Amino acid sequence: MKISELAEETADALRNAGEAALRITTPSIRLGVTGLARAGKTVFITSLVQNLLAGGRLPFLDAAAQGRILRAYLEPQPDDTVPRFDFEAHLQALKSEPPDWPESTRWLSQLRLTIEFRPQGLLDRLTGRNRLHVDIVDYPGEWLLDLPLLHLTYAEWSQRAVGHARGMKRRIPEAARWLAFMEKIVPDEAAAEARVVEAAKLFKAYLHAARDDERTLSTQPPGRFLMPGDLEGAPALTFCPLLLAADGRAVRRSYREMMERRFESYKAQVVKPFFRDHFARLDRQIVLVDALAAVNGGRTALDELKQAMTEILRAFRP
Amino acid sequence: MKISELAEETADALRNAGEAALRITTPSIRLGVTGLARAGKTVFITSLVQNLLAGGRLPFLDAAAQGRILRAYLEPQPDDTVPRFDFEAHLQALKSEPPDWPESTRWLSQLRLTIEFRPQGLLDRLTGRNRLHVDIVDYPGEWLLDLPLLHLTYAEWSQRAVGHARGMKRRIPEAARWLAFMEKIVPDEAAAEARVVEAAKLFKAYLHAARDDERTLSTQPPGRFLMPGDLEGAPALTFCPLLLAADGRAVRRSYREMMERRFESYKAQVVKPFFRDHFARLDRQIVLVDALAAVNGGRTALDELKQAMTEILRAFRP
Repeated sequence: MKISELAEETADALRNAGEAALRITTPSIRLGVTGLARAGKTVFITSLVQNLLAGGRLPFLDAAAQGRILRAYLEPQPDDTVPRFDFEAHLQALKSEPPDWPESTRWLSQLRLTIEFRPQGLLDRLTGRNRLHVDIVDYPGEWLLDLPLLHLTYAEWSQRAVGHARGMKRRIPEAARWLAFMEKIVPDEAAAEARVVEAAKLFKAYLHAARDDERTLSTQPPGRFLMPGDLEGAPALTFCPLLLAADGRAVRRSYREMMERRFESYKAQVVKPFFRDHFARLDRQIVLVDALAAVNGGRTALDELKQAMTEILRAFRP
Repeated sequence: MKISELAEETADALRNAGEAALRITTPSIRLGVTGLARAGKTVFITSLVQNLLAGGRLPFLDAAAQGRILRAYLEPQPDDTVPRFDFEAHLQALKSEPPDWPESTRWLSQLRLTIEFRPQGLLDRLTGRNRLHVDIVDYPGEWLLDLPLLHLTYAEWSQRAVGHARGMKRRIPEAARWLAFMEKIVPDEAAAEARVVEAAKLFKAYLHAARDDERTLSTQPPGRFLMPGDLEGAPALTFCPLLLAADGRAVRRSYREMMERRFESYKAQVVKPFFRDHFARLDRQIVLVDALAAVNGGRTALDELKQAMTEILRAFRP
C-alpha cells in the first residue's frame, strides 16, 4: 500500500479544503521529528525551538544565517485532539540544576511555531507573505516499523518474527521463554482467552527485553506493543506470532483464527489511522539515530539498528 | 440532546446489523458499571465475575438462586480497540497477602463473560438458547458528568463553573488561586497560548483538589480533565471558564474565542464519541456510590455527591 492511497482514504475533504484556504494567508509546513527511543527527539525539538524563539545562532538554517528571520513565537496548534508538545516543561528539565533528561516520547505530540521573516522571492514580497507556521510533530519511530506489517499476511509475519526470536534466544532469555510457551500451543486448537493473553504478555516481555538490552538494541514491530497508551490491554494489541507449519486457512475459533483476526484489526484500526491522519500529512521529516549506542553495543546492535533504519526509511520512499 | 439522537449518529449501520445477526445465535447484554473514583467499581466487577466463574452463591441473582446457571467462563470481548478489564491482575491484587487495592479505573475497559444456563421459557427451550454473553463495560463516572455540557453554551458553562469555584474558594486554596489568575485575563484581548496553558493548568489543579478534599468530594466537569489518558495536553483539554461579563459574541483571536472553540471541540470530539460509541450501546447500567465517605465528609461533601449523582442519573433518563 502506498502512502498516497492512505491519504486518499481521508474522507474529511472539507477539513482539507479549509486547511488549503488557510494556507493562502499563512503557509504552513508540517515537520515530523522521529527516531527510536533514546535517539534524542525531545531534546532536539526543545533546543531547536528555544534557539528560534531566543534568536540563537542557527548557521545551518539559510534564513537564519542570512539574518532574514525577524522573530519566532509559539501559537496554538491546529489539531485539537493531538497532545501539545510540552516545550516549557522539557525546557525546564534541561535548564534545572543538575539538568534533567526530559520525559521520553510516549505518544504523538505537536507544537506550532510561527516564524516571521523578510521575504526573499518577488512573489512573496508582492503578496506580503512573510509568515510561516511550522507544525512540529513528534512521534515514536517505533510506529514506523509497523508500516511493513501492512504488506504482510499473518502467516508471513509469524514466520519472520519467530525466526527473529530464535536468533535472539541465546542472548535474550525472554525470547526463549516466549518460544517455549508457544511450542505448547497448537494453532488449530480452540483458542482459550487466558492463554492468548499469556502468550501476548510473554511476547511483549521479549520485545521490551530485546530493545532494552544494549548488546541487541533490537526494535521489532508491532510498535504499539512497546508503547500502547490508552489501548493497553485491548484485543487489537493482544496477539503474537504462532509457530505455523505452513500457509493455509485457519480453523474456526482456533488460536490461529483469533490471532490472525487481531493482527488484521491492529493493522486496520491502529496502524492505518496513524499513517492516514498523521504520517501522510507531513511535508518534511527528520529522523534521529543514536549511532554511538549501537557502535558501543557491538555487531548485533549495529545490524539491528541498520535493519530498523532500513525499515523506517522505506516508509519515506514513494 | 437525547441519547437516542446520539445513537442515530452512528453511521456504521453494517456493524449493527452484524451484531444483530450474532444475537440470534447467542444473545448478549452490555452491562455498564460506573461510579465516581473510589466507589469500588473494580472490586465490584472482580468479585462478581469471580463468584460467577467459581459458582459462588449469588442469592440475589434469580438464575443463580434457582440453580439454573450451569457454568460461566470468560471469552474474548467483541470490541478490539477497547482495553480488556484485567480481571486476573485485579483478582491477584485482592488475593495477595496482605490484600492490595486494585489499580483504579482510569479508562474504559471491557470483559465478556459467557453464562450457560438451563432455559426457563418455552421459546428458549425450543430454540435451544441456553447461553448469554454478558459484556461488562467499566468506565469512570466522571465521564457522565460531561453529558450536561452538551446542552450548555460556553458562556453558560463559564458562569456555572465560576460560581462553583467562588463557593469553594475558602475551602480549596487552588480555587482561589485559579480565580485570582483569571481576574487578570481580559476575555476580549488577543489570546496568548502560554497564558491559556497556564490558566487550564490552574483550573485542573482546582478540579483535582476539590475532588480529593474529603470535606468537599466535589466532582466537576469536564470529566477528562481529571482523567485525560492519551489526550493529555491536547488543545481540546486545554481550556477553562472565563469571567465573562455578559453573553455576547467573541472577538476574533481573543481568549474567549479560543476557549469557546476548544470547549466546543471537547464536546464534539471527546464527549460525543464516548456517548455514541459506548454509553448509547449499554443495555443495563450499575452505578456505585460511596455514600459513607460523603456522610463522613460532612454537609458540603453530601451536597456535592447529591448534585453529582443527580447529574449522572439524568444521563439515564430518556
